[in-house]
Amino acid sequence: MSDTGTKLTPDHLINTVNAYVAAFEAGNPQGVADLFAEDATVEDPVGAPAHVGKAAILDFYTKSMATGAKLKLDGPVRVCLPYAVFAFSVHLHWEGKDQRVDVIDTFKFNDDGKVVEMRAYFGPTNMHGF
Amino acid sequence: MSDTGTKLTPDHLINTVNAYVAAFEAGNPQGVADLFAEDATVEDPVGAPAHVGKAAILDFYTKSMATGAKLKLDGPVRVCLPYAVFAFSVHLHWEGKDQRVDVIDTFKFNDDGKVVEMRAYFGPTNMHGF
Repeated sequence: MSDTGTKLTPDHLINTVNAYVAAFEAGNPQGVADLFAEDATVEDPVGAPAHVGKAAILDFYTKSMATGAKLKLDGPVRVCLPYAVFAFSVHLHWEGKDQRVDVIDTFKFNDDGKVVEMRAYFGPTNMHGF
Repeated sequence: MSDTGTKLTPDHLINTVNAYVAAFEAGNPQGVADLFAEDATVEDPVGAPAHVGKAAILDFYTKSMATGAKLKLDGPVRVCLPYAVFAFSVHLHWEGKDQRVDVIDTFKFNDDGKVVEMRAYFGPTNMHGF
């Protein structure tokens, strides 16, 4: 398990999660899409049809960010190579209401250090203020 | 997606996670094993060989609890049927040292309401005081 020649270091995975949160803060969907591999899949929430490939993923995040959603990490990123897993809350202000969704995401990385599979776990019991 | 005749309700999944934490508190490995299906798999951490079947799972938790490990939930359980996903910390007192491991588990449930797949995400960056 040598890290020589691979981008799969804990620091890289943690930095990617922080870049993901920062891109939401900046309203920059391209910044999120750039973190993903060309053939990546995004299943959000788990059980919904996956968004497959970078174009579909950019479209998905463009629509997500149009709601003004901001993310707040909830505890440390769990790094279990090649996975980074993190708890967070999504904050929305929609139709005059403050809304929050508690989510846990799993990011699986490929050897190039790109996210190749994202899965978002949440459901109705995690949605507040809707 | 009717819940009629199924145990796959958010309440059942949340109760199972709470029973898992309580069984650690009580030092009761059988109480944990009873939450799992006969053919369940436990991958802890993700990437390690899985413990397969109830006997192997009971053995694994008997050894885990022999360390005196206690669990503390870290935020709400994310319920995304048939999954319950939760962040927590493991607290150990070992060789005079207070130790903590930050973990996120995914529990996948079968239609009988038993955990059929458990995956635990953590790595060296999540281990403190070792």
